[in-house]
Amino acid sequence: MMLRELREQVCEGNLALPRHGLVAWTGGNLSALADSGDRIVIKPSGRLYTDMTPEDMVVVDLDGRIIEGIHGPSSDTSSHLGIYRGRDDVKSVVHTHSTYATAWAALGEEIPCCLTAISDEFGGPVPCGGYARIGGDAIGEEILRSIGRSPAILMKQHGVFTIGPGIQKALQAAVMVEDVARTMWAARLMGTPIPLPEEEIAANFDRYTHRYGTAQASEGVTGNV
Amino acid sequence: MMLRELREQVCEGNLALPRHGLVAWTGGNLSALADSGDRIVIKPSGRLYTDMTPEDMVVVDLDGRIIEGIHGPSSDTSSHLGIYRGRDDVKSVVHTHSTYATAWAALGEEIPCCLTAISDEFGGPVPCGGYARIGGDAIGEEILRSIGRSPAILMKQHGVFTIGPGIQKALQAAVMVEDVARTMWAARLMGTPIPLPEEEIAANFDRYTHRYGTAQASEGVTGNV
Amino acid sequence: MMLRELREQVCEGNLALPRHGLVAWTGGNLSALADSGDRIVIKPSGRLYTDMTPEDMVVVDLDGRIIEGIHGPSSDTSSHLGIYRGRDDVKSVVHTHSTYATAWAALGEEIPCCLTAISDEFGGPVPCGGYARIGGDAIGEEILRSIGRSPAILMKQHGVFTIGPGIQKALQAAVMVEDVARTMWAARLMGTPIPLPEEEIAANFDRYTHRYGTAQASEGVTGNV
Amino acid sequence: MMLRELREQVCEGNLALPRHGLVAWTGGNLSALADSGDRIVIKPSGRLYTDMTPEDMVVVDLDGRIIEGIHGPSSDTSSHLGIYRGRDDVKSVVHTHSTYATAWAALGEEIPCCLTAISDEFGGPVPCGGYARIGGDAIGEEILRSIGRSPAILMKQHGVFTIGPGIQKALQAAVMVEDVARTMWAARLMGTPIPLPEEEIAANFDRYTHRYGTAQASEGVTGNV
Repeated sequence: MMLRELREQVCEGNLALPRHGLVAWTGGNLSALADSGDRIVIKPSGRLYTDMTPEDMVVVDLDGRIIEGIHGPSSDTSSHLGIYRGRDDVKSVVHTHSTYATAWAALGEEIPCCLTAISDEFGGPVPCGGYARIGGDAIGEEILRSIGRSPAILMKQHGVFTIGPGIQKALQAAVMVEDVARTMWAARLMGTPIPLPEEEIAANFDRYTHRYGTAQASEGVTGNV
Repeated sequence: MMLRELREQVCEGNLALPRHGLVAWTGGNLSALADSGDRIVIKPSGRLYTDMTPEDMVVVDLDGRIIEGIHGPSSDTSSHLGIYRGRDDVKSVVHTHSTYATAWAALGEEIPCCLTAISDEFGGPVPCGGYARIGGDAIGEEILRSIGRSPAILMKQHGVFTIGPGIQKALQAAVMVEDVARTMWAARLMGTPIPLPEEEIAANFDRYTHRYGTAQASEGVTGNV
Repeated sequence: MMLRELREQVCEGNLALPRHGLVAWTGGNLSALADSGDRIVIKPSGRLYTDMTPEDMVVVDLDGRIIEGIHGPSSDTSSHLGIYRGRDDVKSVVHTHSTYATAWAALGEEIPCCLTAISDEFGGPVPCGGYARIGGDAIGEEILRSIGRSPAILMKQHGVFTIGPGIQKALQAAVMVEDVARTMWAARLMGTPIPLPEEEIAANFDRYTHRYGTAQASEGVTGNV
Repeated sequence: MMLRELREQVCEGNLALPRHGLVAWTGGNLSALADSGDRIVIKPSGRLYTDMTPEDMVVVDLDGRIIEGIHGPSSDTSSHLGIYRGRDDVKSVVHTHSTYATAWAALGEEIPCCLTAISDEFGGPVPCGGYARIGGDAIGEEILRSIGRSPAILMKQHGVFTIGPGIQKALQAAVMVEDVARTMWAARLMGTPIPLPEEEIAANFDRYTHRYGTAQASEGVTGNV
């Protein structure tokens, strides 16, 4: 894939963030790794989503040097780069301050795995990493240390980062972590939600990971044919 | 009605779910029973609502075998089938993880009948069924056991299922259960809502069921003409 | 004004309810009194807002007899009529189950007057009337007994009614009561909001009622010219 | 810049308020100072945002006398003027009753600086000024006394005012104060958020103020090139 095409996909991915209600004003950003593995395309710093075009996207190398771009790269670029350098399965990263995920992060708490949707998407609680200063290597390092097999991590007193093997999966994790964060927040305000048993978490994660979106999605088919 | 026409209606019904804010990403699904009684049409597994067309809908028989379809059926197909097999008054089923209904479900609590709107739509509290694993027969069985005369049921630590004699009524129940779940959640956070007396629940349910949407909807007419 | 024109305005007023997020599915209704004083135009019972047209509106006399209409009138028609019969300053009535106003109503509590916006719009707390059964005269009577000078009243375990000297003012009260109900709900969950002093309530209500929307809206002008 | 052009920008700025969900009905207002320094353009009093045009904007001098305008100026004009007279770095003022900011204001509490986004945008807690009566000089004076270096201030039992060196920055502060107010409200309902250490607040505010939106936005670039 040419960088031109990746710029278009990264721009489209960034525009999905306000459409899903995950960002305010110029906040949030999405990046993706080029097939060559030595370039990322990322949202520019401090630009409104309105009228954002592929030409506004910034290309940097893995040390953060600007390769192409009429704007500076996102102020979270170092954090994205740290993830790409440490996890070669990650091809896209999303960062937001989406409201309810960030509310859990404000308290430094993981989102407990009390719903089937959480076991499906995250394979357990959504972890919360410790506080790390924006702009340097600290955030990327803390994410690598704490994210485990989850595609999403809360960062204490900051916001949320999600990762994926492609843009769609990183976006999906950003949408779903906010969705379950809001539901669990609403539940927690009424009472004390109880985590699912480990064997249910494992069964849900396995089904969702291996059969969802396939011809064998429904047990009926598997069991009866 | 031809299956082609039912595919269109089921597709349109599924597209109503994001329009009413009841689902996130690929979550949720709606199905309907064909007039023949031996086929259902259901949303495909793991597909985004964007650009979903009638051709994407999947036709399965009551044992879950795919009859027509370019995708696999929803991973909740077995749960839908269990309801159709057990309740011959049901012609459509909706499943969502809508936020506030699922918050009550996270705690395993029914929604108490403290508002006229709840007595109108549900004839009493919205019941909450026990936890059951996704993908097999357990969810359908628990729904049949616990739903009673309500068109909606919460499923513990999972989400909500609604049923109806047609697509519109199943959709209505999905919209209304989220609406009353949110209102009752908001009330419960401020204090302790008190259930309506049984005779008021009965009077409201009777009025809504027998006169709503008719020429005698208003008592004025009944009483004065 | 001809009834044809009033049908159009009442239809447009009803369509404003979903646009402002005040209603779900077929819930809620708006009516207006004809200039003749012996007819009201009201939303039909149990019809979706989608594709609602002026022809769907129902004309009834003050005893609730259908004068014109292809559908039955709203099941809340008797409540609207009771208000028109008892308050000749009222030319339009709105009824909704908007979420946060109804949350206060679920508890049977008035919304305390702790914000300038509440003193401006309602001249004091938004009152909450006692529970009354839908469909007969009881609701209208309770509203007349309890609404005072406020353009909005919560009805216990039911929802909200608003009144105005015209459609726009009744709609405004429906929008504003939900807005302040949500803000006060959010405040109340964090602490104990304190009512404004009586003299501040009086000063705000006077300014808003007599100068807002006029050339003397700003004190600067009044004081300095 | 001609006043005609400023009318267009002020109209557009006011129309951004409902688009960002910050206002209800006719509430809220935005003004800007003319380059000449002796005129402001402000939203008219009591007009709906629907169909608002540049011609509806009102031009007043710094004493509040109407210079041009077919409507009266906003009833908050005196408060805007007080800010412009006291702070010559301010070229635009926004006032709203946005829900979550106003919930904090209802309690007379500042929004504590527990998130990086708050240190970025506001350089510390968002302050809350004391109660002051609408329409005279009291609100402007209290804002000048209490706002400090923050671009936003809550006003007790009233709402929020934001300021900026231009319309976009005042709007940004209005959007961001509601965003962080909602997130902190959600966090506070679950637990006790802890403020960031002073050195983290200082580091974030410095980075955001001096590098955000520039070619050096990312530390990677600064550190490695």
